[in-house]
Amino acid sequence: MIPVVGVAGKKNSGKTTLIEKLVKELRNRGYRIATVKHDVHGFEIDIPGKDTYRHREAGARLTIISSPDKVALVEMREKEMDLEEILERFVEDVDLVITEGYKSHPIPKIEVYDGKEFLLKDDENLLCVVAERFDEMNVKVYSPDDTEKIADLIEEEVIKKNPVPNLWLFINDRHVPLKDFIRTMFYEIIRGMIKSLKKVGKPGKVVIKVWYGE
Amino acid sequence: MIPVVGVAGKKNSGKTTLIEKLVKELRNRGYRIATVKHDVHGFEIDIPGKDTYRHREAGARLTIISSPDKVALVEMREKEMDLEEILERFVEDVDLVITEGYKSHPIPKIEVYDGKEFLLKDDENLLCVVAERFDEMNVKVYSPDDTEKIADLIEEEVIKKNPVPNLWLFINDRHVPLKDFIRTMFYEIIRGMIKSLKKVGKPGKVVIKVWYGE
Repeated sequence: MIPVVGVAGKKNSGKTTLIEKLVKELRNRGYRIATVKHDVHGFEIDIPGKDTYRHREAGARLTIISSPDKVALVEMREKEMDLEEILERFVEDVDLVITEGYKSHPIPKIEVYDGKEFLLKDDENLLCVVAERFDEMNVKVYSPDDTEKIADLIEEEVIKKNPVPNLWLFINDRHVPLKDFIRTMFYEIIRGMIKSLKKVGKPGKVVIKVWYGE
Repeated sequence: MIPVVGVAGKKNSGKTTLIEKLVKELRNRGYRIATVKHDVHGFEIDIPGKDTYRHREAGARLTIISSPDKVALVEMREKEMDLEEILERFVEDVDLVITEGYKSHPIPKIEVYDGKEFLLKDDENLLCVVAERFDEMNVKVYSPDDTEKIADLIEEEVIKKNPVPNLWLFINDRHVPLKDFIRTMFYEIIRGMIKSLKKVGKPGKVVIKVWYGE
């Protein structure tokens, strides 16, 4: 699983501002960052451009626009995607995912304290609290301007502790963790299967999707 | 590979209007549709909401926003994604992809004729031309209002001729077509590998991603 850290906090506590600072700082350290915002209320979409807007209004479930420097997508859902599903399907080529929201999710989290209510008091995944003043004990606390120290903590506790494995298995959109010897076995079996094919050259990145229907 | 049909034509020839009509018609026939627009000039992004905009401006490579009814994403690219890569990574749970643009791509295509220049004259993947008047021989021609007939053609020539296979292999983001007996072999080997794992239940959809580095 790709390293993920969540930023949680009440409305207007400064989550987005903290994320902006962390993205800048970690990017300067050479990490490629993805952000995932959880919006429970639904958001307005006004892009990605007139034509795709018309495609979607006509009833397209998924609209994508691709240009030389960026790609954008909107998908209508009957059911909200969960975070694992989002990571599996959309996230590639990044070193860290920072989420905004997902405060009940079992990922390492940073709480931006609003001065009133300590949301993640009993959350075992709490990494630290960001606040001007904070009186609880046994919690690491940083000022909102301590961007470098918070980034150090994320490097130590999230990025370095979650080395990206070289094989991932997803069954029904859920990541299935594998023990090392099983992962190695899968890795070698698939290498053997690929090797027997003609004209594929050096494999590099391999993705296999299978549907076992009735 | 998922069935794909392209709509090509000069600027202002009516591509988006035709796509709107086709999406509505095919959706009414029960198909789930995705659209992919190829924008060679780059598009302006003004969404998907203030916060994700700030995430991206801070330097996030990928920003995602998820709500109960929809999900949206913007990814900055060093290199444009090709159509196969887009389909592999982003497109799921649809029955047909309609592209706008990609006029040189080897997919079945519909040309919206602008009354002046016949763009796909020598393209062996040309399915039909949509025009009020058209004088070339040996080409199926429909009026822009013949939405039902154009949808019939897409059903016959694209959707029904591309039954979705139950196993896909991608190497370095390229789809690798497999002969039937090889596909069956892969299918059964992977089923065997999964079966040996505990607690995964009935497999359903299985995705394996492997990175063979040096």
